[in-house]
Amino acid sequence: MSLISSLYKSLYKITNGNATIEPEELCCYAYDATGQTFMPDVVVFPVSTSEVSQILALASDHKISVIPRGSGSGMTGGSLPIKGGIVMAMSRMNHILEIDTNNFIARVEPGVVTGDFHKAVEQHGLFYPPDPASSAFCTLGGNLGECAGGPKAVKYGVTRDYVLGLEAVLPSGEIIHTGVRTAKGVAGYDLTRLIVGSEGTLAVVTQATLKILPLPASVKTMAVLFQTIEEAAITVSSIIKESIVPRCVEFLDKSSIDCVRDKFGFAVPDYINAILIIEVDGSVQAAAQEAEKIKNFCISKGAEQVILSSNPKETADIWSARKALSTALFKIAPNKINEDIVVPLSSIPEMVRRIEQIQKRTGLPIVSFGHAGDGNIHCNIMYNRKDPKELTLAESAMDELFAHTLELGGTITGEHGVGITKMKYLPKEFGECEIEIMRGIKKVFDPHNILNPGKIFKNS
Amino acid sequence: MSLISSLYKSLYKITNGNATIEPEELCCYAYDATGQTFMPDVVVFPVSTSEVSQILALASDHKISVIPRGSGSGMTGGSLPIKGGIVMAMSRMNHILEIDTNNFIARVEPGVVTGDFHKAVEQHGLFYPPDPASSAFCTLGGNLGECAGGPKAVKYGVTRDYVLGLEAVLPSGEIIHTGVRTAKGVAGYDLTRLIVGSEGTLAVVTQATLKILPLPASVKTMAVLFQTIEEAAITVSSIIKESIVPRCVEFLDKSSIDCVRDKFGFAVPDYINAILIIEVDGSVQAAAQEAEKIKNFCISKGAEQVILSSNPKETADIWSARKALSTALFKIAPNKINEDIVVPLSSIPEMVRRIEQIQKRTGLPIVSFGHAGDGNIHCNIMYNRKDPKELTLAESAMDELFAHTLELGGTITGEHGVGITKMKYLPKEFGECEIEIMRGIKKVFDPHNILNPGKIFKNS
Repeated sequence: MSLISSLYKSLYKITNGNATIEPEELCCYAYDATGQTFMPDVVVFPVSTSEVSQILALASDHKISVIPRGSGSGMTGGSLPIKGGIVMAMSRMNHILEIDTNNFIARVEPGVVTGDFHKAVEQHGLFYPPDPASSAFCTLGGNLGECAGGPKAVKYGVTRDYVLGLEAVLPSGEIIHTGVRTAKGVAGYDLTRLIVGSEGTLAVVTQATLKILPLPASVKTMAVLFQTIEEAAITVSSIIKESIVPRCVEFLDKSSIDCVRDKFGFAVPDYINAILIIEVDGSVQAAAQEAEKIKNFCISKGAEQVILSSNPKETADIWSARKALSTALFKIAPNKINEDIVVPLSSIPEMVRRIEQIQKRTGLPIVSFGHAGDGNIHCNIMYNRKDPKELTLAESAMDELFAHTLELGGTITGEHGVGITKMKYLPKEFGECEIEIMRGIKKVFDPHNILNPGKIFKNS
Repeated sequence: MSLISSLYKSLYKITNGNATIEPEELCCYAYDATGQTFMPDVVVFPVSTSEVSQILALASDHKISVIPRGSGSGMTGGSLPIKGGIVMAMSRMNHILEIDTNNFIARVEPGVVTGDFHKAVEQHGLFYPPDPASSAFCTLGGNLGECAGGPKAVKYGVTRDYVLGLEAVLPSGEIIHTGVRTAKGVAGYDLTRLIVGSEGTLAVVTQATLKILPLPASVKTMAVLFQTIEEAAITVSSIIKESIVPRCVEFLDKSSIDCVRDKFGFAVPDYINAILIIEVDGSVQAAAQEAEKIKNFCISKGAEQVILSSNPKETADIWSARKALSTALFKIAPNKINEDIVVPLSSIPEMVRRIEQIQKRTGLPIVSFGHAGDGNIHCNIMYNRKDPKELTLAESAMDELFAHTLELGGTITGEHGVGITKMKYLPKEFGECEIEIMRGIKKVFDPHNILNPGKIFKNS
């Protein structure tokens, strides 16, 4: 019997039949949002920490790779089984175990869909701010792996700011508990935040204790239309200087606007080259006052028009235009490279100018939108993968994009992680010494390199 | 020539004369707030990253311990040279290198006094929330080492939430750069938050990039007087449920009140057994509205009296009572063991009852106050160290205190760290496997165990 058949039998037994080696099923766990595909040898669907532990112990014994997987919506290949092995799909561990309304914490399994968790806590008048664009289908486990952010990070921070403690399984199969169930805690090294953002390479999270907040009583949303991207960019940091921290400041460039012009629910004139979507929250009075203040402020900074939503329908229209963007981009070209660079706020105008230059040089359309409030720009290089010339151009555009980002004091990834697609750029952001320390940490957790190998670090 | 003399000569040369082996100077770097004393062999005062690097490389070559030191205000022995060696006092690296008002970040050296940094950013209309009680003299480097918190953590989080990136020197002398200069960043493992809270055992921080916020336009402060501690505790979590997150919710128990009764600027009747100090901030209107709402809410929850400050003098009075507490405790007994336990909010009343039982059993006064808004209670066991019977009782009280804390789902330290004083309790909070991982990480950074040895982990 081959190793794979024997492994499959063991996995089948551990999970009471929840494992597969059928090619037509395997191929459903071979992809992610990068569009790349690698076939796993087996897919297993554990339902408990004990099963996860047994699976990892078995894989350790056989030195077989295990690749934890949420819903495969990652943008950098984090959940791709690039060397084959066992894909561990966490979809059955999808229970919200506890929402503790007295202590403002929740305990969840990794397979819970982020959007479902949002709704569940909102029913208790509570609020979980991390909100990646994929929240309708991505999982909390995936969000933890990549340290997902989303538009509300300006005021509320990212996933790592909401993870108080973890139950996780080491590659050896040993179960560990990190962090706390309380608001504060500093005992020992911060294993919790080390595992968050480690892209499933250090341990498999089986439970997370998350901090939740009271749901703000009121949210006010507005769209702000500018003639130039510079005016929009300057407005962003000026608002915060006025002692107002909006919960979102999203921005759309001219190409983005062109893609979704008909979705806003209001007319967007041709001379508009940038739109900001700004949201403030708080008590009913505070949110209304801040919204009014921002509205007047934006006009004083040169905004052509401010559309302050006055009802849920208008708010939904503004957001549906923003949310339609990702798919609407395919009007422009069949493929996109979506990079989530971050630059200091004050460098946004310069970065936008440099992106325009890359666009001119390569002739490829580059569409930029994203989280202006924290300098996190989603740059979409649009191309046709089947055209070898465009493929080469797209790759050179990406090289330039990251070079400019780093030159301006930025980072190659604000929320998507390194995975496989940014692996070659990591050594441009960090030196050898930092990467050696990271590799050393990987070895402490995973001495046989069986957990999600070939990610983040070259030749890993 | 002895090793120490030869080391001293080298350190003297590296730092252009800023090193000492004079006993009367060494003894000034032998203590911390635990009251324990260990003499270093040499004290050195580097002024630059390059000097720190040379000192560590030298120490590595000779396998001599280096103990980084801020201002020695730590509560758990983190900066004590328990095995002798070189104390590296960071007091000359006390420059605020940059306050970037466009990008809301600051770059600082580790020896900057926290309170000085507060004032410096406030002059630009900005705000750095972490605010340990020792902020008038503690340093940002020490705050990073312990992941300091303070009263504003309820709304604003702790030190780790404000550290974007670090420059640090490894025990080998190699200089590393971690994290980002931007609001978001997830490239590679989170070395930044691993070093924050590592109590100076992994690397010596030489520069930190900190996130700063706009200064809230208005702060409203109130003192809320209760007949019972239970009413006070229930009020805390109820306020947050009302969708208001105060920036501080401090609490004082009966013994605390007795210590500073005359300092409040208003009469505190004898039947008052608990006081909450609550602060809200925001725009002028929002803060006023929230303060009024909380005031009425507290009265509805059984508060005897709410004193809402109407001017800076009244605010200062309320805080000066709270701040006088630490020293006023010595009215009760000559020595104190100050423990910064954290329990879930809803367990505060039960914890307070259990502390009363410990008090009854041991006969030692235990005074509790602290950050009720995040469940972080500072328990002060008052005793006379010179009385062997009291010493034994105090130690058994501490054992009981931690046992109850962990039983209620809490942690042994919310902001002081483990150091040497809580070392024996760490294995009660974490299992062997977690601690082995932490020791493994220590070895990656510090293979020869020269940096602040003998801290956090037993036999380290």
